[in-house]
Amino acid sequence: MADKAQIQESIKNQGEVVRKLKVEKASKDQIDEEVAKLLELKAQLGGDDGKHQFVLKTAKGTRDYNPKQMAIRERVFNTIVSSFKRHGAETIDTPVFELKETLTGKYGEDSKLIYDLKDQGGELLSLRYDLTVPFARYLAMNKITNIKRYHIAKVYRRDNPAMTRGRYREFYQCDFDIAGQYDPMIPDAECLKIVHEILSELDLGEFRIKVNDRRILDGMFAVCGVPDDKFRTICSTVDKLDKMSWEDVKNEMVKEKGLSEEAADQIGEYVSMQGGMDLAERLLQDQKMSQSKQACAGLTDMKLLFSYLQLFQVTDKVVFDLSLARGLDYYTGIIYEAVLTQAGVVPAPVSSEAQNGAAEESVSVGSVAGGGRYDGLVGMFDPKGRKVPCVGVSIGIERVFSIMEQKAEASAEKVRTTEVQVMVASAQKNLLEERLKLTSELWNGGIKAEVMYKKNPKLLSQLQHCEDSGIPLVAILGEQELKDGVVKLRTVATREEVDVSRADLIEEIRKRTSEV
Amino acid sequence: MADKAQIQESIKNQGEVVRKLKVEKASKDQIDEEVAKLLELKAQLGGDDGKHQFVLKTAKGTRDYNPKQMAIRERVFNTIVSSFKRHGAETIDTPVFELKETLTGKYGEDSKLIYDLKDQGGELLSLRYDLTVPFARYLAMNKITNIKRYHIAKVYRRDNPAMTRGRYREFYQCDFDIAGQYDPMIPDAECLKIVHEILSELDLGEFRIKVNDRRILDGMFAVCGVPDDKFRTICSTVDKLDKMSWEDVKNEMVKEKGLSEEAADQIGEYVSMQGGMDLAERLLQDQKMSQSKQACAGLTDMKLLFSYLQLFQVTDKVVFDLSLARGLDYYTGIIYEAVLTQAGVVPAPVSSEAQNGAAEESVSVGSVAGGGRYDGLVGMFDPKGRKVPCVGVSIGIERVFSIMEQKAEASAEKVRTTEVQVMVASAQKNLLEERLKLTSELWNGGIKAEVMYKKNPKLLSQLQHCEDSGIPLVAILGEQELKDGVVKLRTVATREEVDVSRADLIEEIRKRTSEV
Repeated sequence: MADKAQIQESIKNQGEVVRKLKVEKASKDQIDEEVAKLLELKAQLGGDDGKHQFVLKTAKGTRDYNPKQMAIRERVFNTIVSSFKRHGAETIDTPVFELKETLTGKYGEDSKLIYDLKDQGGELLSLRYDLTVPFARYLAMNKITNIKRYHIAKVYRRDNPAMTRGRYREFYQCDFDIAGQYDPMIPDAECLKIVHEILSELDLGEFRIKVNDRRILDGMFAVCGVPDDKFRTICSTVDKLDKMSWEDVKNEMVKEKGLSEEAADQIGEYVSMQGGMDLAERLLQDQKMSQSKQACAGLTDMKLLFSYLQLFQVTDKVVFDLSLARGLDYYTGIIYEAVLTQAGVVPAPVSSEAQNGAAEESVSVGSVAGGGRYDGLVGMFDPKGRKVPCVGVSIGIERVFSIMEQKAEASAEKVRTTEVQVMVASAQKNLLEERLKLTSELWNGGIKAEVMYKKNPKLLSQLQHCEDSGIPLVAILGEQELKDGVVKLRTVATREEVDVSRADLIEEIRKRTSEV
Repeated sequence: MADKAQIQESIKNQGEVVRKLKVEKASKDQIDEEVAKLLELKAQLGGDDGKHQFVLKTAKGTRDYNPKQMAIRERVFNTIVSSFKRHGAETIDTPVFELKETLTGKYGEDSKLIYDLKDQGGELLSLRYDLTVPFARYLAMNKITNIKRYHIAKVYRRDNPAMTRGRYREFYQCDFDIAGQYDPMIPDAECLKIVHEILSELDLGEFRIKVNDRRILDGMFAVCGVPDDKFRTICSTVDKLDKMSWEDVKNEMVKEKGLSEEAADQIGEYVSMQGGMDLAERLLQDQKMSQSKQACAGLTDMKLLFSYLQLFQVTDKVVFDLSLARGLDYYTGIIYEAVLTQAGVVPAPVSSEAQNGAAEESVSVGSVAGGGRYDGLVGMFDPKGRKVPCVGVSIGIERVFSIMEQKAEASAEKVRTTEVQVMVASAQKNLLEERLKLTSELWNGGIKAEVMYKKNPKLLSQLQHCEDSGIPLVAILGEQELKDGVVKLRTVATREEVDVSRADLIEEIRKRTSEV
């Protein structure tokens, strides 16, 4: 017991040290040294904890992709990239970590979810939290004022993972953004067109794209009597409307955030409104709403947006929804979010951990794309504060993967993980050299070919491998075939076999597998 | 001065604390708390350092890829992935960070270059250092005993960057590996065939693939009288032979590492040998070498390897070179490295920092691929130590990028960063809606099309954009064309214009751009 008291005394002493160091503005080096001492001690304690159990796992909230998942991922990426390229986008890449200060002050409360790298000397670094802030940094750093780019890469958030629902700590983002000073709402409309195209082509089922505008939200708050300094917090409560009932939302506004009941009721009336261009027109005439200059600007642009969406023939899926209020601080104009509306596509929670978050997720899991206009972000990086207006969209690719994986699981269709066209095989012994020689000929001819790495494999096991991995053809060599200068070409599905002259083999394989 | 003494006293006190905590095996939590206090203090000190200067840059040793670099990167990846797929490889992906302990003890001295994540509570994590260790972890974790996979992803090393020479702290690796128990040297030969294919197709100029075997090296050291416990360190000296003269290497062996002069001279004789299958045969008869069982096993396999390489027709580029000794600890059998042999492809050092490392790099910069057999690595992860033999190759993709970029820079050829086929334009005013409508029709028809985001852009600026970004066609709309139901299709290169009926437009664009 005396020892324990001693330790407590020692820790008090250390408090002293810390206080003194602070008073003296001691050098960071001194502190680093002390930190190193303590961490080393911690490591030693770890060693004393008894025999160390090696854990064979990936980091919490992350996963490997196996070949089947990669095959699905490749298909999804191809669909998305095709659409981005159809719209003339270039692509860029940025490092996985940024200077810590680059990310500071961009994500509001969510900043606590940023992964920091250990201070190993040199710069303080953090893993990127999204692709938008690195994009803005890239534009400012290179003084780019016009670009249409996509960027597909992984981002990192120390969030509570819910892997059964496709929420990970390491996940892909898939962003398309248009930067530049242009006439209003044309790039914005193109972003929505792209969401429409991609969701249609991915064939995920029915979807709806909700649209609103930061300016309409702010104007609405103003005319409803929300004090200026409460816009952000009330906005984040409104953002919960797709997960909570209006009663609960109102309760939070009034009881937790101190809004007057009257103001809350007025907000309640507006946020229940949904429509299209007609609604924008109606609200422009609305006695209250029309008092806000901001709201009128947003509503006028909303009308213009819908006129372009009509030209793009996507108004069937787009809804002007006053309850949409996306969380991120940096949006300044139009905002949007696409949700799947068909039941049955959402994986059910299985762990108790997921259960706890169920209320929060039961609806938002349907969200598969989102974005908006952020005209101020690049200016935050420019030394002279020069603005570059931007609008963009991010495809919620992990949700899409989850759904596609489920679909593949449910369907009878077998996902191939290689593209091998032909297996070079033999039924007889001692033909390894001949098999290797033929395989090499096929490779040189651009044919995707495999050969077993065995001196004398059984024909059955060679055929079985073809069945298992979906290889459509087998080129079989034997003494007789070698003598005749032919190869026995077998179609795996039908078991049909024909002799093909060695000179024609590449052409024949190409012809047959282009039909498959 | 008294204050300084006080601080020193305080730090001494803290030493006390640390010692006591250690004695008492205090909880890690206690230490974490103290560490947090100190780090917080450090942060506060940072704030006091005077007005903070915001730095607009990427982290040291990293870079953005701009659209032009991305276009080159995509081409290089396509070539490499095509080869991997031709050989029947699947692909996997692993997280960018691993549990710290997964990487521990795999890289020998280089472990100091690993990036650690900050301890923010939870698991201790590190950024991956290569793709091989995560691959081995993946195999052990999923009990996979057979796979042929490629993996292209970024890895992280806190190395001294030399960016002008393509050495970064964040860089791509591009790995192909074959795991499984197979007959000897067949997968090994395929890896060399792949290196040969890829380097030929990338058209980087003349290259040579050096081959050796860990067992031949170890056997050679044994018969030359190197003590067992000096194998590794002597091996790492031999590894410097491509950067240092034999005299310097010998000096290091004898003077720094205490080898006898006689042993060094014997090593010197062997490591000057180069050849093919003949050399392997000769060494099998060598009086000294043949005394080592290990060396004989390696030499017998080397002969077998060359027989397969003959079937694959790649012996023109492959050299059995006894001086090749790759650094990584985990190799157990054959090792290889491909180098470019043509002068003039190597970027010259520009910074003084690069100058300092010039001697070290003047030759090794030519290395563009490397790999070998590592039969023990997976077993390090398996709880029961079950081994999965592996052989693989890594393409030094950053070097390849550097060379390709230089080539693109030097050539007149313009690198396109988009694939846009047609620009929808107009010469007259007030045709924005018509332009948007036509563009949408083209998108829906699968055509890659762009339109200017301006109400009334000048025709000249629309044409200029096509010139700048290499768009081959312009679809021009005017009042007359709208009336006639046609579009004026202009070929940018020739300035030729023809009217195309709107119904035929998509087909016509497709036809013309497939020829381009």
